[in-house]
Amino acid sequence: MCHVTVVKNIHRGDRLILVPSRNLHQHLGDLLKSMDGADVTFHVGGESFSAHRVVLAARSSVFRAELFGGMKEKAGGPIEISDMESDVFKALLHFIYTDEYEPVAEMTDGCEARREAVMAGHLLVAADRYNIEGLKVICEERMCNLINPDIVATSLALAEQHGFRSIKDACFEFLASPSNLEAMMASDGYEHLKNSCPSVLKELAASFLPAELKAAKDIIMTI
Amino acid sequence: MCHVTVVKNIHRGDRLILVPSRNLHQHLGDLLKSMDGADVTFHVGGESFSAHRVVLAARSSVFRAELFGGMKEKAGGPIEISDMESDVFKALLHFIYTDEYEPVAEMTDGCEARREAVMAGHLLVAADRYNIEGLKVICEERMCNLINPDIVATSLALAEQHGFRSIKDACFEFLASPSNLEAMMASDGYEHLKNSCPSVLKELAASFLPAELKAAKDIIMTI
Repeated sequence: MCHVTVVKNIHRGDRLILVPSRNLHQHLGDLLKSMDGADVTFHVGGESFSAHRVVLAARSSVFRAELFGGMKEKAGGPIEISDMESDVFKALLHFIYTDEYEPVAEMTDGCEARREAVMAGHLLVAADRYNIEGLKVICEERMCNLINPDIVATSLALAEQHGFRSIKDACFEFLASPSNLEAMMASDGYEHLKNSCPSVLKELAASFLPAELKAAKDIIMTI
Repeated sequence: MCHVTVVKNIHRGDRLILVPSRNLHQHLGDLLKSMDGADVTFHVGGESFSAHRVVLAARSSVFRAELFGGMKEKAGGPIEISDMESDVFKALLHFIYTDEYEPVAEMTDGCEARREAVMAGHLLVAADRYNIEGLKVICEERMCNLINPDIVATSLALAEQHGFRSIKDACFEFLASPSNLEAMMASDGYEHLKNSCPSVLKELAASFLPAELKAAKDIIMTI
């Protein structure tokens, strides 16, 4: 999977240029930027994005069905994508062409960490929608690494709504600490979690009971 | 350049599947095999190859000019490529889509090594013609590593005819040993080298003279 990169030194004038022997990612990234030969346009969150049907189809079975299969979009007009923000679609396209996930910003404070976790969550939903397994792996890992008292309620709600098991497990593990649990309940995201996914809070409460109290767990789950 | 590959374990039924997070190479390799959405055909050495214009253009400035630039080939008909063997074009396409260079065969004997070196030489000429720098780096390195008394005359002739400096240097270094030089002169490729590139043999002979005998070197080069 991981290619060893051989580089060659080329002297051009007085400049020394390093040429990597493996640069598919860079070339496709350049193709996305240049839009040369682009043959499909998307409208997402008020912005337009041009892309190449064969690249999208090669990377996503959902795009393949939409662009080449029985669900083929009619040629010509732009494809409208609703309920997605433009910066999320931009990051999705970037990954499709380059295998790279670019963090939103340097994380200098908790506010940046929150933005980063929210972005990873939105991108995970987008990757799930278009069945881009590689990006899902990265976003899930990213979200698990970014769990903190401020974000955990939001992450848990997203995990529950979309069935992201590894993130739910990581949130439960984090909330096994009583101090983290208390901090989560004081966070902004708690109300949303309580309203949107009450069952997961019951499951969380039940997880604090020892295994032998199965009956008590059952009571919590059914109230 | 070299991505760390994160993998995720997915259980499907009772099978454990490893999903790498970076698989652009594999997806484009699958695209080449499937030929889905292919929009250009090449005739090379009696065989037909289908491909995707945007992928070729992203990877090769020469294909870009041919397929999208002022030299644009007329749409529709296949593109004829003369003076190239079909297995060389196949390997070229494979590298364009995957960044991978596949050796011809396991090298179990000198005969395989010779085939491998000849293939690397042909592929280097093709990579040079289509300006695919990454493949040139790999083929040059491969040819330098495969130099032996049986192949060195052929490699030196190719290096001289196409201006591949690093291979010429490696051949000269190999031939600095008198026993290697004698073996090369008894090899099948020597006649071809002598007939096609007499000047490089003069240069080789001159390289055996010590630096202070510059006048003698000049005599060799002008006879």
